[in-house]
Amino acid sequence: MSFKEGDFVLLVAGDRRYVKRLSKDFSLNLKDRLLKLEDVVGRNPGEVVKGFCLLHPTLEDVILLGFDRKTQIVYPKDSFYIAFKLDLSREKRLLEFGVGSGASTAVFSRLAGEVWAYEVREEFYRLARKNWEKFDLCKNVRLENVDFSVVDLEYGYFDAVFVDVKDPLPYLDKVWKVMKPGGAFSCLLPTTNQVSSLLRDMESLFCHVEVVELLKRPYKVNPDRLRPQDLMTAHTGYLVFARKRI
Amino acid sequence: MSFKEGDFVLLVAGDRRYVKRLSKDFSLNLKDRLLKLEDVVGRNPGEVVKGFCLLHPTLEDVILLGFDRKTQIVYPKDSFYIAFKLDLSREKRLLEFGVGSGASTAVFSRLAGEVWAYEVREEFYRLARKNWEKFDLCKNVRLENVDFSVVDLEYGYFDAVFVDVKDPLPYLDKVWKVMKPGGAFSCLLPTTNQVSSLLRDMESLFCHVEVVELLKRPYKVNPDRLRPQDLMTAHTGYLVFARKRI
Amino acid sequence: MSFKEGDFVLLVAGDRRYVKRLSKDFSLNLKDRLLKLEDVVGRNPGEVVKGFCLLHPTLEDVILLGFDRKTQIVYPKDSFYIAFKLDLSREKRLLEFGVGSGASTAVFSRLAGEVWAYEVREEFYRLARKNWEKFDLCKNVRLENVDFSVVDLEYGYFDAVFVDVKDPLPYLDKVWKVMKPGGAFSCLLPTTNQVSSLLRDMESLFCHVEVVELLKRPYKVNPDRLRPQDLMTAHTGYLVFARKRI
Amino acid sequence: MSFKEGDFVLLVAGDRRYVKRLSKDFSLNLKDRLLKLEDVVGRNPGEVVKGFCLLHPTLEDVILLGFDRKTQIVYPKDSFYIAFKLDLSREKRLLEFGVGSGASTAVFSRLAGEVWAYEVREEFYRLARKNWEKFDLCKNVRLENVDFSVVDLEYGYFDAVFVDVKDPLPYLDKVWKVMKPGGAFSCLLPTTNQVSSLLRDMESLFCHVEVVELLKRPYKVNPDRLRPQDLMTAHTGYLVFARKRI
Repeated sequence: MSFKEGDFVLLVAGDRRYVKRLSKDFSLNLKDRLLKLEDVVGRNPGEVVKGFCLLHPTLEDVILLGFDRKTQIVYPKDSFYIAFKLDLSREKRLLEFGVGSGASTAVFSRLAGEVWAYEVREEFYRLARKNWEKFDLCKNVRLENVDFSVVDLEYGYFDAVFVDVKDPLPYLDKVWKVMKPGGAFSCLLPTTNQVSSLLRDMESLFCHVEVVELLKRPYKVNPDRLRPQDLMTAHTGYLVFARKRI
Repeated sequence: MSFKEGDFVLLVAGDRRYVKRLSKDFSLNLKDRLLKLEDVVGRNPGEVVKGFCLLHPTLEDVILLGFDRKTQIVYPKDSFYIAFKLDLSREKRLLEFGVGSGASTAVFSRLAGEVWAYEVREEFYRLARKNWEKFDLCKNVRLENVDFSVVDLEYGYFDAVFVDVKDPLPYLDKVWKVMKPGGAFSCLLPTTNQVSSLLRDMESLFCHVEVVELLKRPYKVNPDRLRPQDLMTAHTGYLVFARKRI
Repeated sequence: MSFKEGDFVLLVAGDRRYVKRLSKDFSLNLKDRLLKLEDVVGRNPGEVVKGFCLLHPTLEDVILLGFDRKTQIVYPKDSFYIAFKLDLSREKRLLEFGVGSGASTAVFSRLAGEVWAYEVREEFYRLARKNWEKFDLCKNVRLENVDFSVVDLEYGYFDAVFVDVKDPLPYLDKVWKVMKPGGAFSCLLPTTNQVSSLLRDMESLFCHVEVVELLKRPYKVNPDRLRPQDLMTAHTGYLVFARKRI
Repeated sequence: MSFKEGDFVLLVAGDRRYVKRLSKDFSLNLKDRLLKLEDVVGRNPGEVVKGFCLLHPTLEDVILLGFDRKTQIVYPKDSFYIAFKLDLSREKRLLEFGVGSGASTAVFSRLAGEVWAYEVREEFYRLARKNWEKFDLCKNVRLENVDFSVVDLEYGYFDAVFVDVKDPLPYLDKVWKVMKPGGAFSCLLPTTNQVSSLLRDMESLFCHVEVVELLKRPYKVNPDRLRPQDLMTAHTGYLVFARKRI
């Protein structure tokens, strides 16, 4: 249970957080505190060394602090919610396209039985693979480097779908086809104009349509001066949910 | 795949949503539309009958529309987030006490390997059992009708803990003991005073403490008149997260 | 200073608030407490009689509790902000059209030197007049029962403009003409589609464009159980601000 | 009406905004655009010169961009709301203490008849004076460099009070005394602990107590990509309102 070489560790010191691999050349320098490999190896999770609390990183820590990114990721606050809204479970098969850095897939794959994922941009396809391999994630994900529009899939094959591409409209008919009747659809869109356009196109294909925003407001944790933090993320995207109508 | 007697069905008509069992005496009357058993049996999910879209209910639908409640439940927007913040997975063992109507347990049990749950009030103990049995949930949950303070548990047995009782302070030392070093703790508290008190008591026992609020803002789904709904739930509770320090 | 017949009084009992005129037939019945004229006349503001705190109503109280309404009003939280964003002062002349029940005008008129107001629907024209006369407000407002598009006004006559009509687009050119160069424009719009359309049309006519939402989150005032109220108004409208470009 | 030497000008270029005096040595350098005195003098408000829109600054612009600050100011979104909640008008006398940089006083003085203001820290007393003189504000304000607790004031002299000091509790009895019966009280507090303490002490002295937060959510103004800005101010303070009870 104690940390050993090769493990990943979450290091917490006040507001600073790091996810690092305990490799030969590990070291972390914060102000005048220098943490080296021998300071961490053999220690238990929950120990505090030189002001750093040593912990096993959660999936959220890994995504936010460990993943390489080349674009905006789907934030955990959103993907956690989407995962359950799509009613994912071990019996369910999810289709996801527009995988990006692989952050949302890593969340969905924990809850779903299997995930079929498509990413057309080779750079991102490689990035998602790299992120997953590094942290030993997404064993139940089949990722292909191809546009969803050209994939050959059966009618009614997926219980759930998540779409995160710039313009989902051209894919909507095909998405509908590969979903099970009554299946769960979700899409993340940054602008109101996109939401309006999607809602318009969805009208005849889907029912039980919902649009929500999730706002996360973090607090300063001083018990005698409890108050929200000064700044917060004001927008990540609009979440659209619906069910396939037949 | 089509609906048959005994199934649960989610019925959606505009803003109205119902979760019902397709029993012999099933009927649903909305304005002048009367839906009977024979209207639904044999139909497929996603079909629209007399203005009702017929769907398999998701876990969220079941909790919000199917569960009996005798108190405030942990809302899905919160329990979805907590489930992932606790880093639940099939390898993890969760302790939960203050089970109430069993809403949060139903969410956690989907992601966790096993859940050990305690509810001291017999009325709620029975209610949670009834809700779970009705919807065939929580097979990996051991629920006991006893106060957490009297349960005999090993040191370091749980990967994660969720507490939803009026006053968590008296339980904090024992919670700490039964958690694995570095394990994940969460608590839901309605008032700022409770948050301050908990933070004070946690200071020496936990590290990596976070307090957040999650706000869900639903929109009206008219594509040509996109706008937030007039009213929203402004508060469910403050979510406290931390990791066991040793 | 004490209350006399004919005065308006704000009555506060717990969460219940009323604005009433102390007329001959005044009476207020709440649960088993009956308040009559003789209970209030001769009392001072700040006195508590039969559980009701007696107060002079503020402008906000008058608008929210004393005005008759036939539509959605501009909420004080919004009109207070707009009044200052328009930089109203005694030296400034404001144009307002789409007066509705007269709620926003009552706020603006307190800060502005003079207000020229237009309301095309006779029913609302009469309602605004009635509300203002009842509470002796808006002495510096010239209200006409006519559509703004047919009014004959000088170029560059107004320091500031507030528009609250269903579709402001057809009026935009004329608004621009009657504003002083660099003058301040504001508009309240309920939907994102309207905001997009207005922004598009404003682009060549205005500069320094801003769009904001103001959210007011009320708390329960129990010092030992401080927490937000359960429900809040989630949307009143999007506030658009800009300055006339020449 | 056109800009002349000595005037203040608001310069807007995209998201960048500046309030500057048109003095002999005025110049503004943004990227490769250099704006000099002769570029602005003689121009009209609303003109665009070298990509800068030239405008008369509003009171909000002056406070946010023109005032020197040495502490957190009361943000206009809050002071605009407080000014009207206190029901300020030309007939009303306001007491304010804890003036700081003078930002809130500048807002209140526009609506109130007169303002009696106290600031105990000499540095801030001078700063407020300097800010007001620079922009020719607060002619109806009597500011003294003294702690409110030592000022000799009549019972029931003020219609309204605004308090913005670190710890308002020691002043509460005196505040109550100098207020008119039924008068309006407001206080801005950053932490929940302070709100609880104040509410506790106010209970016997005040009625009609309200606590609110105001959140301002700004949008990006692209009509084809309408969406909230990425970040927002998540907290300025809790606003407490009440009326003097007798």
